[in-house]
Amino acid sequence: MNNPFFTEFHDKGTGITFRIKKELFRGRSEFQEVLVLDTETFGRMLVLDGLVMLTERDEFVYHEMLTHPAFSFKAQVKKVGVIGGGDGGTIREVLKYPEVLSVHLIEIDRLVVDVSLKYLEFTSYALKDERVKIYYEDGVKYLKEHNEDFDIIFVDSSDPVGPALSLYSMDFYEGIKKNLKADGIVVFQSESVWYHLDVIKKQMDALKKVFKHTNLYLAPVPTYPGGYWSFTIASDIAFITRRNHFPDNLRYFNKDVQKCLFALPRFVKDATG
Amino acid sequence: MNNPFFTEFHDKGTGITFRIKKELFRGRSEFQEVLVLDTETFGRMLVLDGLVMLTERDEFVYHEMLTHPAFSFKAQVKKVGVIGGGDGGTIREVLKYPEVLSVHLIEIDRLVVDVSLKYLEFTSYALKDERVKIYYEDGVKYLKEHNEDFDIIFVDSSDPVGPALSLYSMDFYEGIKKNLKADGIVVFQSESVWYHLDVIKKQMDALKKVFKHTNLYLAPVPTYPGGYWSFTIASDIAFITRRNHFPDNLRYFNKDVQKCLFALPRFVKDATG
Repeated sequence: MNNPFFTEFHDKGTGITFRIKKELFRGRSEFQEVLVLDTETFGRMLVLDGLVMLTERDEFVYHEMLTHPAFSFKAQVKKVGVIGGGDGGTIREVLKYPEVLSVHLIEIDRLVVDVSLKYLEFTSYALKDERVKIYYEDGVKYLKEHNEDFDIIFVDSSDPVGPALSLYSMDFYEGIKKNLKADGIVVFQSESVWYHLDVIKKQMDALKKVFKHTNLYLAPVPTYPGGYWSFTIASDIAFITRRNHFPDNLRYFNKDVQKCLFALPRFVKDATG
Repeated sequence: MNNPFFTEFHDKGTGITFRIKKELFRGRSEFQEVLVLDTETFGRMLVLDGLVMLTERDEFVYHEMLTHPAFSFKAQVKKVGVIGGGDGGTIREVLKYPEVLSVHLIEIDRLVVDVSLKYLEFTSYALKDERVKIYYEDGVKYLKEHNEDFDIIFVDSSDPVGPALSLYSMDFYEGIKKNLKADGIVVFQSESVWYHLDVIKKQMDALKKVFKHTNLYLAPVPTYPGGYWSFTIASDIAFITRRNHFPDNLRYFNKDVQKCLFALPRFVKDATG
């Protein structure tokens, strides 16, 4: 008999719990445990190694806020790299810009893509677009062996445990720089301001050694630890608004959010500045 | 034997769960069940009728964001009313402005004040300030029977169930107006954008019948449903910044937050605009 609840603990004392209507998939790749649940109130949910990666109801906040801010700082984006994010949500947002000609998805775990194509159509349909090329590879290795000219790279990684651990290394940051155009931008999902301020600070400090400009911004994702998520954006170009028109079919991002992107509350500014 | 976890369900399918170190108080007033827990990771926690009202770790966001925005729109504040909020957190923030000469706390439930004084010193110490006068009364009744000249009224109510239900009525809003100066401001905590957008919209629509200006703003409170909380501010004066200096000992609010107060994400703007 299945437990009717799924609970993720964010630390030893706090967690989020969901009533489960149905377990749709449970399997193990060589990298991690992959679970897809149909929840009572947040729709379908992807869980990797026990951590919620996305839910149908709130993934729009995460995916819009990972992608559209970087687009706002670029007048033209032709080629995009996405590391991690085998569910397709990030690519769905990227492809809302018709100017984008090519997207490389570098996803270490083929099972995540396969399961997403089967159960998470609301994000994964984007993976079938002819502009998308999928590399089932380790991100660090891919960057070492390639010399791409991406306008933007999105690091849509899982948390800094398990298969994503190498995505928090200097090797990785140098590899990103090598595969970006000189005026390219990289954006990382960078964990919770309530649980991981130390990780955020550490990553920002490392990125500052590689890029001229590094900034943090935040967005509320209710099914992530603490409900308040951070993103780190880095580039050799300054973060000046260079685009005035955004796709129509957005639910979180708009010009107001863009304008106030870097307005951080005091405790976050003090801890990361 | 006590359950080592306390779980609040926000709806039939989603909840937040805390590991409990110790139950410090459990009692019932004529209005509600009052519970004080010592949690593993969020410090002390006040729970009314099963709903988390505050935790030691994150209450600063809620209390700073309920109060300081309104102060930013007033050059001088002498007299303040607080309805609900017997824990003292709102008053603690109000008293950070030395110009404030008098604060009336209207709290229906004496047990909340008594328990806060005993177990929640980090907020309740403010209640002992000589500028504070406590009325153990129903907010609607108090407003009907008084003709005060408050500069600001803060409605620090519990959720629109149980004793706080009447705080969502036109009678209440008219009573607030009667007890405010002509250039006074009222601020309501107004529930979660993930769970109560309909309640938020309804309250805003009602307030628009009573005040010339009504706006919504948001702040991330991880232990409230969805982790993203709303506040509704209403006045007959426009919300123009009229103060440039804020108390030093704030942890959330700052000038950046103030400047971006009304920058709402699209799904909130669309649902409430």
